[in-house]
Amino acid sequence: MLERFKVSDADRVIVMEPQMRNATNAIFKAMGLTDEDAALAADVLMFNDLRGVETHGVSNMLRNYVSLYQNGSLKARPEITTTRETETTAVIDGGGALGLHIAPRAMDIAIEKAAKYGLGAVCVTGVGHMGGTGYHAMRAIPHDMIGVAMSSSGRPVMVPTFGAEPRLGTNPFAWAAPAGEMAPFMIDVGTTQIANNKLSLARRLGAQVEPGWLARMDGSPIMERVDVPEQSYMLPIGGTREQGSHKGYGIGAIIDIMCSSLSGLGPGFLAFEPGFHLLAYRIDAFIDTADFKASMDEFLRGLANTKPAPGHKRVIYPGQLEAEEEVIRTADGIPYHREVIDWFSTIETELGLNFDFT
Amino acid sequence: MLERFKVSDADRVIVMEPQMRNATNAIFKAMGLTDEDAALAADVLMFNDLRGVETHGVSNMLRNYVSLYQNGSLKARPEITTTRETETTAVIDGGGALGLHIAPRAMDIAIEKAAKYGLGAVCVTGVGHMGGTGYHAMRAIPHDMIGVAMSSSGRPVMVPTFGAEPRLGTNPFAWAAPAGEMAPFMIDVGTTQIANNKLSLARRLGAQVEPGWLARMDGSPIMERVDVPEQSYMLPIGGTREQGSHKGYGIGAIIDIMCSSLSGLGPGFLAFEPGFHLLAYRIDAFIDTADFKASMDEFLRGLANTKPAPGHKRVIYPGQLEAEEEVIRTADGIPYHREVIDWFSTIETELGLNFDFT
Repeated sequence: MLERFKVSDADRVIVMEPQMRNATNAIFKAMGLTDEDAALAADVLMFNDLRGVETHGVSNMLRNYVSLYQNGSLKARPEITTTRETETTAVIDGGGALGLHIAPRAMDIAIEKAAKYGLGAVCVTGVGHMGGTGYHAMRAIPHDMIGVAMSSSGRPVMVPTFGAEPRLGTNPFAWAAPAGEMAPFMIDVGTTQIANNKLSLARRLGAQVEPGWLARMDGSPIMERVDVPEQSYMLPIGGTREQGSHKGYGIGAIIDIMCSSLSGLGPGFLAFEPGFHLLAYRIDAFIDTADFKASMDEFLRGLANTKPAPGHKRVIYPGQLEAEEEVIRTADGIPYHREVIDWFSTIETELGLNFDFT
Repeated sequence: MLERFKVSDADRVIVMEPQMRNATNAIFKAMGLTDEDAALAADVLMFNDLRGVETHGVSNMLRNYVSLYQNGSLKARPEITTTRETETTAVIDGGGALGLHIAPRAMDIAIEKAAKYGLGAVCVTGVGHMGGTGYHAMRAIPHDMIGVAMSSSGRPVMVPTFGAEPRLGTNPFAWAAPAGEMAPFMIDVGTTQIANNKLSLARRLGAQVEPGWLARMDGSPIMERVDVPEQSYMLPIGGTREQGSHKGYGIGAIIDIMCSSLSGLGPGFLAFEPGFHLLAYRIDAFIDTADFKASMDEFLRGLANTKPAPGHKRVIYPGQLEAEEEVIRTADGIPYHREVIDWFSTIETELGLNFDFT
């Protein structure tokens, strides 16, 4: 993450991972989730917090989920149904539950099918937020599979290249492959220049946004460095046509098709609700797993050892920094903004819970 | 394609599609290909020329292929073998043949597997150039499937974000989905800011390159508009970190993994030869095909009807311009640079063929 999105020293409170996990778990249970679902949902948020993906950890997301349970928008005990199934595919209706604990179950179905047939893919409807796509893609790794996770968004925020009306969500995807000695390759990105959550984070931290990240309400790209505007649209990866925004727009559209049209929701900008797509490839359906992992080690080591350009200390590969951060944060604790910890105190009282952040 | 890459009026020679197809077909047959393989290879090039994808039509590619046959680098009559196979997957060794006629056969295997099981994926090694990924992804469309095609490149040309050494090829991919009344959605792009071929085209046409497209030999992005430099590296989609190049770099790396590591070639920058990955999704394994196509029509119409930003006439979706161009060029002929037609005259004499371009 760019430096400007990090919590400043003065506002930082350090909490050890098991304590934050317990608190988060307790909140999900208080919302009515089963023990298993609460643990799964907490695991998604802690995965992100441990790996430094603040935008999808407890800070930005949990209070929002709590409101949605409290106002009845999310079901704690959903009825999950399978609406279509073949040897390698399935479509799952999550019954109005939070995506955090539905997506892993859908990925597990994809993994089970890939274990039998080589490939497996599952579409999901009837769900809330996925909590970041990375966790769900990474679920394939221990099974010696490549994992892919995508989510269309509930609300169009991205203008297509040359467009003045939003037509796509931030439509994120993650793609993960195991290695041997090296940390897994894992890319987890939105198809807009900046994530929705990162915009809120930038607003909270008083950080500016770069030229080519946002568009004015008439669709023209904002090509200056500015404070987060009151109103704006998102631009696709690349920002402008010259910098490849037609490619970012196209990739965002692919995710919309896989998550919304293929799942039966209809186009994202009409459906106004998220859909997911999960895909698993069994590696030894193509190559011996040991050979693949050796090749991945060579590949990732080669990327990480690339001579850096002037002004840069090193080259990293997707997933490398996050794996390093996980080691550090597991040992030293996770830094949260003071405001987040204040919210935990409030909700602790409100729900009659008992957190230990010492 | 940006205006600057189009052939100027003065240098333009118009040839009708069937005549250029016959000539191209005759050249492939003269190289020793079977009638079926020659027709398939010519079909790939004419698909690109008809759709306005000059970079992957006869202009840029055919003379190169001919040299490779003539110096023995490409086999006209390869022995094709299947090195691994499961219900849904296969790995094919193309026996040193040109990818243009091997990739469609690999896609057909993926399609056959998807017809039976819902999904199908095939890796390909032992091949030359694919001739653009679009043709191969589109091959899934008449089967009511979604098609994906990727190729790693033989030679590293792209520097990773912050890197000073090339580690990835232009690693292109295509992704195609059918619609009902609307032209299919089809994105066909490289994961660098500019294709290798487009650089040669820019050099030939005297066109300039944009800031953020290329890097100097020390890895620093060239942030001015310049003539095509003597020496440079490619930058990933996005160009700079601030404009999302880490996403473009990550997507390029995914393609390397799927085409090179998963196929058994080893990392692209060590293997120094291309690999392919083809994937087919049977739509009715998820949703009734008619419902999907209706949803796609709504989606694509919505994109195409987006109100344009100031200075732009309209918004287009991936594949739309190319489909429009195909109608025009089928009726009016294909514009070629005079230099290309001169090459056809030379090769016509050299091979003792007889072309009719009147």
